[in-house]
Amino acid sequence: MKYVYLFHEGHKDQKDLLGGKGATLAEMTILGLPVPPGFTITTVACNEYSANNMQLPDGLMAQVHDALAAVEQAAGKKLGDGTAPLLVSVRSGAKFSMPGMMDTVLNLGLNPATLQALIAQTGDERFAYDAYRRFVMMFSDIVLDLERKKFDRIFDQAKADAGVKEDWQLGPAQLRDVVAKFKALVLDETGAAFPDEPMQQLELAIRAVFNSWNNERAFRYREIEKIPHDLGTAVNVQTMVFGNMGEDSGTGVAFTRDASTGERQISGEYLRNAQGEDVVAGIRTPEPIDALRKENPALYGEFAGICEKLEEHFHDMMDVEFTFEHNRLYMLQCRVAKRSARSAVKIAVDMANEGLIDRREALHRVAPERINELLPPRLDPRAKVTALGPVSKDVARSVAAKPTMVFVREDGIGTMTAREWHEMAPPDRERFLASAQFIEIARGLAASPGAASGKAVFDSDEAARRGKEKEAVILVREETSPDDVQGMYESRGILTERGGLSSHAALVARGFGKPCVAGCEAISVDEHARRFAINGVTIEEDQVLTIDGSIGAVMLGEVPTVPPEQFPELRELLAWADETARMKVRTNADNPPDAKNAVEFGAMGIGLLRAEHMFLNPRTRVATVQEMLLSATETKRLEADAAGVREELEGATGDKRSHLVTRLNEVLARLEGPLGRYAGALDRILPMLQGDFEQIFRVMDGRPVTIRLMDPPMHEFLPNHDELLEDVTRLRATAPNAPGLREKETLLEAVNGMREANPMLGLRGCRLGLLFPEISEMQVQAIFRAAIALKRDGIDVHPEIMIPLVGFDTELARLRELLEATAKREMDDAGVQVPYQFGTMIELPRAAMVAGQIAETAEFFSFGTNDLTQTTLGVSRDDAEGKFLAKYLQMGIIKDNPFETIDQVGVGGIMKIAIEAGRKARPALKLGICGEHGGDPRSVEFFHRIGLDYVSCSPFRVPIARLAAAQAALGEGAERDK
Amino acid sequence: MKYVYLFHEGHKDQKDLLGGKGATLAEMTILGLPVPPGFTITTVACNEYSANNMQLPDGLMAQVHDALAAVEQAAGKKLGDGTAPLLVSVRSGAKFSMPGMMDTVLNLGLNPATLQALIAQTGDERFAYDAYRRFVMMFSDIVLDLERKKFDRIFDQAKADAGVKEDWQLGPAQLRDVVAKFKALVLDETGAAFPDEPMQQLELAIRAVFNSWNNERAFRYREIEKIPHDLGTAVNVQTMVFGNMGEDSGTGVAFTRDASTGERQISGEYLRNAQGEDVVAGIRTPEPIDALRKENPALYGEFAGICEKLEEHFHDMMDVEFTFEHNRLYMLQCRVAKRSARSAVKIAVDMANEGLIDRREALHRVAPERINELLPPRLDPRAKVTALGPVSKDVARSVAAKPTMVFVREDGIGTMTAREWHEMAPPDRERFLASAQFIEIARGLAASPGAASGKAVFDSDEAARRGKEKEAVILVREETSPDDVQGMYESRGILTERGGLSSHAALVARGFGKPCVAGCEAISVDEHARRFAINGVTIEEDQVLTIDGSIGAVMLGEVPTVPPEQFPELRELLAWADETARMKVRTNADNPPDAKNAVEFGAMGIGLLRAEHMFLNPRTRVATVQEMLLSATETKRLEADAAGVREELEGATGDKRSHLVTRLNEVLARLEGPLGRYAGALDRILPMLQGDFEQIFRVMDGRPVTIRLMDPPMHEFLPNHDELLEDVTRLRATAPNAPGLREKETLLEAVNGMREANPMLGLRGCRLGLLFPEISEMQVQAIFRAAIALKRDGIDVHPEIMIPLVGFDTELARLRELLEATAKREMDDAGVQVPYQFGTMIELPRAAMVAGQIAETAEFFSFGTNDLTQTTLGVSRDDAEGKFLAKYLQMGIIKDNPFETIDQVGVGGIMKIAIEAGRKARPALKLGICGEHGGDPRSVEFFHRIGLDYVSCSPFRVPIARLAAAQAALGEGAERDK
Repeated sequence: MKYVYLFHEGHKDQKDLLGGKGATLAEMTILGLPVPPGFTITTVACNEYSANNMQLPDGLMAQVHDALAAVEQAAGKKLGDGTAPLLVSVRSGAKFSMPGMMDTVLNLGLNPATLQALIAQTGDERFAYDAYRRFVMMFSDIVLDLERKKFDRIFDQAKADAGVKEDWQLGPAQLRDVVAKFKALVLDETGAAFPDEPMQQLELAIRAVFNSWNNERAFRYREIEKIPHDLGTAVNVQTMVFGNMGEDSGTGVAFTRDASTGERQISGEYLRNAQGEDVVAGIRTPEPIDALRKENPALYGEFAGICEKLEEHFHDMMDVEFTFEHNRLYMLQCRVAKRSARSAVKIAVDMANEGLIDRREALHRVAPERINELLPPRLDPRAKVTALGPVSKDVARSVAAKPTMVFVREDGIGTMTAREWHEMAPPDRERFLASAQFIEIARGLAASPGAASGKAVFDSDEAARRGKEKEAVILVREETSPDDVQGMYESRGILTERGGLSSHAALVARGFGKPCVAGCEAISVDEHARRFAINGVTIEEDQVLTIDGSIGAVMLGEVPTVPPEQFPELRELLAWADETARMKVRTNADNPPDAKNAVEFGAMGIGLLRAEHMFLNPRTRVATVQEMLLSATETKRLEADAAGVREELEGATGDKRSHLVTRLNEVLARLEGPLGRYAGALDRILPMLQGDFEQIFRVMDGRPVTIRLMDPPMHEFLPNHDELLEDVTRLRATAPNAPGLREKETLLEAVNGMREANPMLGLRGCRLGLLFPEISEMQVQAIFRAAIALKRDGIDVHPEIMIPLVGFDTELARLRELLEATAKREMDDAGVQVPYQFGTMIELPRAAMVAGQIAETAEFFSFGTNDLTQTTLGVSRDDAEGKFLAKYLQMGIIKDNPFETIDQVGVGGIMKIAIEAGRKARPALKLGICGEHGGDPRSVEFFHRIGLDYVSCSPFRVPIARLAAAQAALGEGAERDK
Repeated sequence: MKYVYLFHEGHKDQKDLLGGKGATLAEMTILGLPVPPGFTITTVACNEYSANNMQLPDGLMAQVHDALAAVEQAAGKKLGDGTAPLLVSVRSGAKFSMPGMMDTVLNLGLNPATLQALIAQTGDERFAYDAYRRFVMMFSDIVLDLERKKFDRIFDQAKADAGVKEDWQLGPAQLRDVVAKFKALVLDETGAAFPDEPMQQLELAIRAVFNSWNNERAFRYREIEKIPHDLGTAVNVQTMVFGNMGEDSGTGVAFTRDASTGERQISGEYLRNAQGEDVVAGIRTPEPIDALRKENPALYGEFAGICEKLEEHFHDMMDVEFTFEHNRLYMLQCRVAKRSARSAVKIAVDMANEGLIDRREALHRVAPERINELLPPRLDPRAKVTALGPVSKDVARSVAAKPTMVFVREDGIGTMTAREWHEMAPPDRERFLASAQFIEIARGLAASPGAASGKAVFDSDEAARRGKEKEAVILVREETSPDDVQGMYESRGILTERGGLSSHAALVARGFGKPCVAGCEAISVDEHARRFAINGVTIEEDQVLTIDGSIGAVMLGEVPTVPPEQFPELRELLAWADETARMKVRTNADNPPDAKNAVEFGAMGIGLLRAEHMFLNPRTRVATVQEMLLSATETKRLEADAAGVREELEGATGDKRSHLVTRLNEVLARLEGPLGRYAGALDRILPMLQGDFEQIFRVMDGRPVTIRLMDPPMHEFLPNHDELLEDVTRLRATAPNAPGLREKETLLEAVNGMREANPMLGLRGCRLGLLFPEISEMQVQAIFRAAIALKRDGIDVHPEIMIPLVGFDTELARLRELLEATAKREMDDAGVQVPYQFGTMIELPRAAMVAGQIAETAEFFSFGTNDLTQTTLGVSRDDAEGKFLAKYLQMGIIKDNPFETIDQVGVGGIMKIAIEAGRKARPALKLGICGEHGGDPRSVEFFHRIGLDYVSCSPFRVPIARLAAAQAALGEGAERDK
């Protein structure tokens, strides 16, 4: 069995066998790049070691010896040699990068003898002792598993004794003394001397790497990340090269293109006379790579040639690490480079146009989700550094759903997990924090994308007033209701303490295209006192906040933002996407600006226009809508009474008859008021809606528009119950004769009458439509009158009437019959015909079970995956997201939030049942989806696979969906997260 | 085409062709019984008439002529003959009895000539004129379609002129005058003379029957009852016989057995010298049939012989109508008799034992639902008459769900539809109402079976106090909460204004076996003022009410009740059922009395023991449970804080470290209180539950017991939010320094923190169990400690631990792992092993979609069809039942309330998916159902068909389910509603 591969014996596709790092080193070596010679011990060896009770496989060390000999020959040095000693690094290298595993031992091979040789070779005693000091400490910490702090203490003491502050201020004698004390400590702790024999050092280091594969942290990490435990890790042993051998040495990191803009020029930085860790540690300021071009054109030329070769070989922008030792260039690492969203798009399109990759590949190169970063107003990527302080750490924990931290620095907006933060070395953390400009204080739900800054305002009326005067305000509320809509409209962004991604705040904000962070449960809003508290800190009114609704972050201070833009490469990429995709992309839009936005972003129609949003926007309509609903309910009740009396009258005679006639007249008299108010309200709302529809139809200019008739439970249009109850209780206790009390009591009674234990499963959707057919008819009248008016203007309209919450085929049949008659009457009266369709949302499991029967009446199905997820999983999004779903994600009970990424097994299974039955009954059935999942790439991929015709999502997600649909059509997942 | 069948030409299986009445008359004729001769015109003739624009089919009247000739020959009379005139009755007769269709024309054939012959024949001028008067009026009303009131007015005027009150007081001269005036009216209204020609009368009557098939009322009735419109009606023409031809004539109705007790003896009544309608009209009091035996043994003997012959022929108890004319007996009608539930059981068992039918048939003879009438305390069937007055009519309409009226009279408890009531002739209604003793005032949901009377009490504490003192009270509440449990326990019955069949009131009442009418939305309860209003009438505290929870009725006054009993024939029938059924029947029981009851009713185990019910019963536990939940929440929050600080501490040094240590100590100090309270509460609850389990296990004596761990959302155990808010608001406004305010504010905050938008879909079931594993473990400890204690007493226990609301297989796997370890620890510690199983409820559609994976961990599935119906249909039962479901039933959008009878297509479809996948993964998987549907016979039939192993239902429904399971196994539906 071959356990050991010299670098030139492997290649880049052997990550399973050689690990990620080993495969890259091998690939660079066979490409002929100047890689310091070395070899890789395979993952197979690691696994046999694990399986065999920590016994190194037979023959392994022999193979190591042979490989080492080859390396020695190539390097012209020899391990342990007293003249030209070979020093090596030993690094773990699993298939996936894994925190918690042993990382690196440098300078292995040093001992008293080779140390002297190194001094002789370099003429730099301090350099050599410093290398020795580092090696002994690293080896003791990582290989011998001794407590690092004890070594730190010795080192700190030496600095104190010498009266210096910085490491580099210690001289060779002092370092020699430190090494001696380190070795004494090792003897003391282990009862054995520090191993001086280089081969022994190497074997111990190899064992330490293997052991670290099975240490507890690594094990737990794999459990969480679902990485199989039987992958094993490889071990890379490589000749040391030194960038700190004087002014003709150095080290650096670079990208083969500009990682931030995507321009085709090498970017990066380097440090002269320094080691790799010095670049990372940031003690000295590195120079831009361009400086190297001027200072050492020959070296730079060699390096640029390598970069071009790498791009040609890997067909991608690469991230490289290099060192030059006495002007000799070495390549140490090369990876596909991470990049900003903008550069990802530009590079993909450029490379396709350069012929480096084809368009198919270009489409795969951009993770659709990343387009999100480009479109809404976003935090300025050049803003210096906003990092997470200790406050924010607590918040991240209490939010719990996503133990993720955000930071903003020159290289873009990034995130790290709590684990990564935790595992960052303390000095790195300190530096990271020291450069912070803005402090993130809380993390809520990313409810509506984009970033915005403004003064915190806690009252909607005030927000509306100040917003109208062009003041930048962020509306902060416990949660929002229709009363807040005007204030939301005039604010730059909205922050709420409660409510999920489908809460009122989130929906309205997305409708308005305003950034919104919702359900930020870490903050505690006191609307009355106009402030909120977060972990003991109080934020008062007028404090400037920045929220980023793309990620759910809340920051103190004004973080600069930049406006969205669709730059040429993005337009080009999306045009290719549209040519490739099978599925169409529509948008969810309820008003002309949203519709206009969406068309600009490439929406091919409206997939969800929520009629009820027109009821609430503008705010002035709310009173009329409330009157409509309250009088409708009263009217229905009195009409039922009247019908009952009439029925009794039929057979009645004499006294009884005259009694009944009197009663009937009473009921009819009582009915007059509400009936008039009902008809009046309907009459007043109809032209408002008609006007809105006309505007939207005009914007959509012939593209199909799917209009969902009124869906939400009635109480959503009415004043808040608890506030009313408080008002009434207070007035009863303090001012029982107050003039407004009786009115409020009546309203409270009405609100109580419409209250529901589980409104999500209550009187809404088509149930409302069937109980109040006049309201359904009014909406259809407004739609068709608008369509007729536009048709007369020469503009085509294709309205698709969508009936929500159908569970029984009879519901749809009954409503279609009623509403199609209304539509035909309008068209016949006008003498103008408009093409139309009737369809339904599939958002209840029962609808899927009777999809065949429903399809007999429905010309299209639109899956309402928000509600379908709630009913299939029996989970109320508003309640679950901040509570047990977060915990479930943490516990690993679920892998994804099912409200973000479609639950393929559960909800998807139900969808498949519906699709099969629906298409069987009506082969031409049009199938779409208009839940939040329509803008989620992984979900879009699934929707493609199960055969939907279109997805519909919010305007800003349309480009994401277009790209995701193309990737889905290409039949492979995107390479994410570059 | 043969359109006309003489009676002896047909038989009983020709209902399609001859209608129900025609087929029966034919069958009796061929049996050789003395049926007055006649013939039937087929439904085919009717349909051809309808299809052919109201043209009688060719040849029909010729066939009528021929048949008439045969009848004339048999009767020895001739239609229109001046000496021996034949008089006939003409009746419609469809396959199904149908109100709204033409019923009967008697005495057809009378005209001035035949009248004289009749006078000569009978020597009774008054009899003849009275017959003539009746004929002209019926014919004018029904055949000529003239307004009946105008004839009534002439007749009333004649009585007024004669100064008499009763019809029979008019003499022949006065009647002759009336007939003359009737005929003048006909001439006036129609412009043609009243038809005197008998054949013309006959043809017109036949046409009138045919026409009535298509009149609007009949059409609408068929629409509602889903009777096809193309069945058509038959017409029966039969020789008149007269029971009013003197003292040797008479008429009566009888049952071949005792319809009320089922005893094997003819029961019924008869009237001498009377016509059939006189018996029905109740002007004279009829004599019991036994009197006939003494007065005319020969006639009685002939009659008894016929009864026996009929039973032998039809294998059932029959309901017959007979007339004797001059001591000659005629059979006019014979039907399978309707009977009381008790007699249905007795007759089925008796007949099987007599050999008239086999046991299979006996099992089919009783509709399972009827057993319901026998078991809970029920209204005394002998209570005179409780009828529905005008008040109640309104109520029935406003309840709307079931426009049904209930009445109680000597022949048992019955119902009629609003339509039937409406169509009752006014005098019949008056008589019906005049005999009313008790008035039903409202109809709510039949939430818990049985009847109870008591004084209305509106306060639970008062109900508890008065109930304890043995006063009979009915607790009336808007709705109930855990605070009301003690009051409910001490009341005779519960009436609530709001809440569905799974509301708190309904569940608790069923648990206690108390009658309950819930969701009675027609009443408006003012708990504060201690009264309720119903249609303007106010019912004050202490008014005696009777409620019947088997049908949902609320009555004023004390209607006598009788206790339930399992009489010997019922036991015998149910024993046969158990031998026949494949499915087992278990019970839902949460306390020892329920369990005991259920075992007596034949339960073979407990299918659903709701652990949380033990938390609430007795009431004294509530405070401890609240403490457990409140401190658990606080503990979890603080523990998360502490864990976070500890995590941060790991890498911290210096100042930061000491700061963190201080903080950790603070958090730990704050944690102490809640942690202690949490542990304390758990420790106090554990022995309470253990004691309850021991008692129940003892009662169940080795039968399996399925225990569902705590399921409901936490707020259900906490004080009512709105009441707290009112208290806090009032105190803040009036007494801001009141001592209790702060405490109430804290409690309100806690309650607010647990409030959910849709609690049905919130933090409950296994989600609670996973977030608070200590509570789950405590329950399992109590179960196993109880089982171990009993095992030591030599009593077998088979606990089955059921995890509710599983949607992800990982939820169950995680909890099983935790809880099985707890169970094993308990058993190992005690050194006693108990056989056990772990399983889950399938009550979410997603659970069905992953049933295969779930079955890998679950040893049994119990379908929670209540919640499964709510999620599959997206319908909240509490909200929907009083609102749109009622309307949906009325509109025909749904045929059955899906919470009463399983929705086979939707919910059933989901169940089938789960069963298939579950059995595939684990062939031995045990399948049951423990929703309300477990006690619904039609649902039980479905559950049998899809392969469930058992159903579980409330104790009182166990016998129903046993019989239904047997009928299901026999593979045919029961003959219902005899």
